[in-house]
Amino acid sequence: MNIVVQKFGGTSVRNLECQRQVLQKVLRPYREGNKVIVVLSAMTGETNRLLDLANEWTDNPDPAEVDSILSTGEQVSCALFALLLKQQGISARSVLGFQVPIRTDSTFGKARIIDIDVDNNKLTKMLKEHDILVVAGFQGCDENQRVTTLGRGGSDTSAVALAAAVKADICEIYTDVPGVFTTDPNMCTEARKIDRIAYDEMLEMASMGAKVLQIRSVEFAKKYNVTVHVRSTFSNEPGTIVMQEDETMEAVLVSGIAYDKDQARITLEHVTDTPGVSAQIFTPLADKMILVDMIVQNPSKDGKTDMTFTVPRSDVQQTIKVLEKLQYEIGFEKLSSNLNVSKISIIGVGMRNHSGVAARAFQALADENVNILMISTSEIKVTCLIDDKYTELAVRTLHKAFHLDEGEPLEKL
Amino acid sequence: MNIVVQKFGGTSVRNLECQRQVLQKVLRPYREGNKVIVVLSAMTGETNRLLDLANEWTDNPDPAEVDSILSTGEQVSCALFALLLKQQGISARSVLGFQVPIRTDSTFGKARIIDIDVDNNKLTKMLKEHDILVVAGFQGCDENQRVTTLGRGGSDTSAVALAAAVKADICEIYTDVPGVFTTDPNMCTEARKIDRIAYDEMLEMASMGAKVLQIRSVEFAKKYNVTVHVRSTFSNEPGTIVMQEDETMEAVLVSGIAYDKDQARITLEHVTDTPGVSAQIFTPLADKMILVDMIVQNPSKDGKTDMTFTVPRSDVQQTIKVLEKLQYEIGFEKLSSNLNVSKISIIGVGMRNHSGVAARAFQALADENVNILMISTSEIKVTCLIDDKYTELAVRTLHKAFHLDEGEPLEKL
Repeated sequence: MNIVVQKFGGTSVRNLECQRQVLQKVLRPYREGNKVIVVLSAMTGETNRLLDLANEWTDNPDPAEVDSILSTGEQVSCALFALLLKQQGISARSVLGFQVPIRTDSTFGKARIIDIDVDNNKLTKMLKEHDILVVAGFQGCDENQRVTTLGRGGSDTSAVALAAAVKADICEIYTDVPGVFTTDPNMCTEARKIDRIAYDEMLEMASMGAKVLQIRSVEFAKKYNVTVHVRSTFSNEPGTIVMQEDETMEAVLVSGIAYDKDQARITLEHVTDTPGVSAQIFTPLADKMILVDMIVQNPSKDGKTDMTFTVPRSDVQQTIKVLEKLQYEIGFEKLSSNLNVSKISIIGVGMRNHSGVAARAFQALADENVNILMISTSEIKVTCLIDDKYTELAVRTLHKAFHLDEGEPLEKL
Repeated sequence: MNIVVQKFGGTSVRNLECQRQVLQKVLRPYREGNKVIVVLSAMTGETNRLLDLANEWTDNPDPAEVDSILSTGEQVSCALFALLLKQQGISARSVLGFQVPIRTDSTFGKARIIDIDVDNNKLTKMLKEHDILVVAGFQGCDENQRVTTLGRGGSDTSAVALAAAVKADICEIYTDVPGVFTTDPNMCTEARKIDRIAYDEMLEMASMGAKVLQIRSVEFAKKYNVTVHVRSTFSNEPGTIVMQEDETMEAVLVSGIAYDKDQARITLEHVTDTPGVSAQIFTPLADKMILVDMIVQNPSKDGKTDMTFTVPRSDVQQTIKVLEKLQYEIGFEKLSSNLNVSKISIIGVGMRNHSGVAARAFQALADENVNILMISTSEIKVTCLIDDKYTELAVRTLHKAFHLDEGEPLEKL
């Protein structure tokens, strides 16, 4: 049984006319004899409408109830699309998260998929009974059978996880852009579409806000070796294949430049530098599901050190609240924060075998007088925190410095 | 553990202001120390909005997909109400049909409840964890875990079935009328509110379109001896208690006059009168879930007979389709139908011990020149099919003939 998974977002299913276009995309693999799993988001605007409703009812809505409300968006779009398929005489049905089941943890609002139908093979059974399954993206259920949602972009993860579960040949993620770019085309017109990208590179791109795929979906794809094809809903041109690293990829020094303006810097000054102090700081933040990214600790002086790190801008208030409560326990003198920062990253698996990438990046930024506030590096990435007003300048500078503009000219988006 | 079940309809939950009024009703039994199961319908208009959407997509939408779409209405209203409760600091949660589970058959669109959580005692466990459960009415799931809906008024049945499952002290059905009346007050201003009514009487009232309770809910109440209190959302006055028959009820000859204009008459002329012919006619209709009500067979003449029966008006087309296909097999000459009929019923458990009720009814109608097209009687009911233009005249005439207007004057509705 050859299986193709296809995922479409909210704009693609927002009305009957759009769903008819999606139908054409779905009919292609179906007519080629594949079983198809279609994963859909809620119709555009529906999730926000429902969220507004919850916020009208109470200022601080319970996340479990919000998830139950939000999940209806996908429930409706999937059933409607199934109606279209059945009208074509196709054996199809809609499938909800709890029916698969897509089992998640209980972190309502941003739940993580734990497993998909490992024991029962219900999915396989449904695929035998039907040629096309329309599965609600973005939702799952926890061990108590409560409905959960997977957070923004969660439908991507649903699609990849389903592809992994049924060992699909390919997982096609349809989006409103032609694929993954060397950098954000809105910021740098020289950006080019990347034909093939390694999971690890994509992970760095996604985590840096490249926004094409939810990061969790790429983790899943990597873990289960699912080939993902990110492509445009509006054309039949091939997009970007996200896959296992191979030699030709390694020949390229840098694949792309990513940036993330949704960052804030927190500094704890004069922290008493005792063993375990890092854990004291970061464990309570992790407990609140706050994603700490770059961490820099200054060399200790007189038993005191400064600890600087970044968190998503939306989590700044909570971060401050958590840490101020623990001020005595952790033993720091002052907490300061800066919301006007952005992260720029240079990404490429080719870096593993080449030195000098970081140096070339620092020089390029220095030539443009862009001051670097923090630096962190990994095997395939160099990241700099800078003043956010220099974001565009830095992206363009680095894009040019690594010759990313020297490919095919970018088609007009 | 004392448990009260309360059910509120769509108008009661249609916006935040209305839900706050419902909250006051729910707080009463809660503050008296009861655990409360609140059963809610979708917000007014939501079910129709969703149905319109399905009909926009296709002319003949698959009932299973429609049910998945429709059930989101209750899912949203219940989660929103749970938010209100939690805001009050009450331990509460919303519960969906599949989470109970409310197990039904697979007759999508008008599924019947088979059982509620018989094995697992999940409900009892949830009631131990929370003081108030907000359960989605109108929905259940079949053995394949597909979402089903219970048909118009299905939330009543959800409420009574839940009350039966947890052995609740009382099941309060809140509605926009003060209770059950001796007849429809819109048709007869002398109608009075009935304080107590027997299950069997209520069954006849409901099946005749008294519309206060879904008939299936009364069947459930009778079967499991659930005391149901039908009362108004807009006042604190007691309504009508639906309960087991007792002696004081039997002392009353007639409890009410019901009518049903949603009927059509079908006649099969010159049916070959052989053993088994009735089964040949009515089994295929039952298979299509068409509810055949009154059946009259004329005495056979030359081996031929006429067979006349009534069906809901909405099922006439399907009935004709089914029967015409079987014309040769059944062996009838002609099928005729009449949509301009209505059913009038005189109902009362007191009839069991009194004769002459039918005769008095026929005489009263004859005095007003109302022609009777069909008659059927049961232990506690006399039903006449008449031309539907005489409905109001017949209701008023019978209401007066059995002195139903001679009680307390009806408060202005």
